Amino acid sequence: MLHPSNEGSIRHSPLSAIVISSGDVDCIAGLLSLRESQPLAIYADDFVRDVIEGNQIFQVLNRDLVKRLPLPAGPEVELLDVQGEALGLSVQAFPVAGKIPLYQETSDDIRQLSSGKAVIGLSIRGPHNKRIVYIPGCAAVTTDLLHHIEGADLLFFDGTLWDDDEMIRAGTGRKTGKRMGHMSISGADGSMAALAGISVGKKLFIHINNTNPILCADSPQAAAVQSAGWGITHDGMEFHL
Amino acid sequence: MLHPSNEGSIRHSPLSAIVISSGDVDCIAGLLSLRESQPLAIYADDFVRDVIEGNQIFQVLNRDLVKRLPLPAGPEVELLDVQGEALGLSVQAFPVAGKIPLYQETSDDIRQLSSGKAVIGLSIRGPHNKRIVYIPGCAAVTTDLLHHIEGADLLFFDGTLWDDDEMIRAGTGRKTGKRMGHMSISGADGSMAALAGISVGKKLFIHINNTNPILCADSPQAAAVQSAGWGITHDGMEFHL
Repeated sequence: MLHPSNEGSIRHSPLSAIVISSGDVDCIAGLLSLRESQPLAIYADDFVRDVIEGNQIFQVLNRDLVKRLPLPAGPEVELLDVQGEALGLSVQAFPVAGKIPLYQETSDDIRQLSSGKAVIGLSIRGPHNKRIVYIPGCAAVTTDLLHHIEGADLLFFDGTLWDDDEMIRAGTGRKTGKRMGHMSISGADGSMAALAGISVGKKLFIHINNTNPILCADSPQAAAVQSAGWGITHDGMEFHL
Repeated sequence: MLHPSNEGSIRHSPLSAIVISSGDVDCIAGLLSLRESQPLAIYADDFVRDVIEGNQIFQVLNRDLVKRLPLPAGPEVELLDVQGEALGLSVQAFPVAGKIPLYQETSDDIRQLSSGKAVIGLSIRGPHNKRIVYIPGCAAVTTDLLHHIEGADLLFFDGTLWDDDEMIRAGTGRKTGKRMGHMSISGADGSMAALAGISVGKKLFIHINNTNPILCADSPQAAAVQSAGWGITHDGMEFHL
C-alpha cells in the first residue's frame, strides 16, 4: 500500500501499510529489509502475527512506529496508516486451503498440509468499488473460495505448477505440488478446471515456479491457459482499475 | 566462500560455506534468501547459532543439507564444506567490542553496549599464507584487537560513521555511533588514530553509512582517510591476494 504520508522525512519510505497472507518466508522475510524506524502498519491474521512475535528477529521493526494490526478472516477492514488516516482501500481476509510454513514442519506428515488457518486470501476493494482477489497459494478450490472470487475485477491466483510432479521430473525438488500446498493448473482437479466457470473481469496466474512451462511464451501450456482466458504475469506488470 | 562442489545440480549454488560475524539483521537475514535444500556449511559462534536456533524461521534451511558449525573465538579453524572437503581457507574468530543486535535490546540501557560476546572479528588465511582481517563493526580498538590485526595483508574495518553524532545532525536517526556499537573514524578516540601505527598491507573502510562524508570523493574527509593510508570501499570491488 503506497501512500505519501511519510514524505518529508529524510529516510522517507512510500510504504504506509503491508498486508501479509501467510507465514512463508517469501511473504514475511522482506520485513527485515525495511526501514526499522519509519511509520508502517502491518496487517496480518493471528497465525502470521504469532510468527512475527515468536521470532525475535522481527523486533528489529521499532514497535513505537511499526504497528502490528489484526486482520481476522471475515470482516472487511478499512486500511489505515499508523496515524489512523484512511488509505482508500479495504481488505477482507478469508481462509484458503494450504499448509503451514516449511520452517514449522516437524516431519513429512501429510496431515500438516491443510491446517485451514495458515493461509489466507485477500479481497481488496479500492476506489470506484473495484475489487482485486489475491490468492498466491491454494491447495484446493472450495465452494467458499468460489464465493469470494466471484465478481472480482481482477483475480491473482496460485500458478506455481502446471503439473503436480513437474519439480520431481525436472530434478529441482523432491516434492509434489500437493505436498507443498499448491494445486496445479492443469488436469481435471487443476485450477483451470476448477475456475472455468467463474465470472471475473480478468484472471491471472502469479507465483509461477521456474519449472512451469507456461513461462515459455511459445509453449502449448501457455497457449492453453491463454485460450482459457488466463493471463500470465511477469515482473514489472502494472494494472489500473 | 565460493566453491564448485555443488556444480551439476540443476539448482546449483556456488556457495559452499558462510561465516557469520554477528547476529545483526544485515549479517543473518540473507540466510533466508538462500536455496533451502542445497549443501551449505554455516560457521558461527555460539551467540549467532543461538539466534539461528532461537528464531524458528531459520529452520527453512534444511538441516540435512545445511550444517550449523561452531566457530569459537580462539582457535584457527580450517573451513570445510558439508562433505568435509577443505575449501583452502582457515578462519580465526576473535571477540570485538560491540553490542547485541538491535532486536535483542529491551531498553535504551547503555550497559548493553559491550556484552563482549555478541560481535566477532575474523582473521581469514588463504592460499600463499595471505591473511585478511574483517571487522565490520567495532566499538573500541583494544590491545588484543591490535594484536589480531597486526601483519594482515588486507584489513576491512568498521567505517560506519565519520563523527559520533552525524546521524543525529543529518536527521536520519536519534542515536550516536557509540550507542550503536560503532566507533567513529575521526577524532582522538577514532579508528584512524587508533590504527595509525598498525602494520598491514592495505587497510580499507567498509560498512560505510550513507551519512558518512568519506563517500563523497571530493570531500576533505575522504582526502583525510586516504592521506592516512586508508581506502574507501564500494560495491563490486575485488581484491586479489
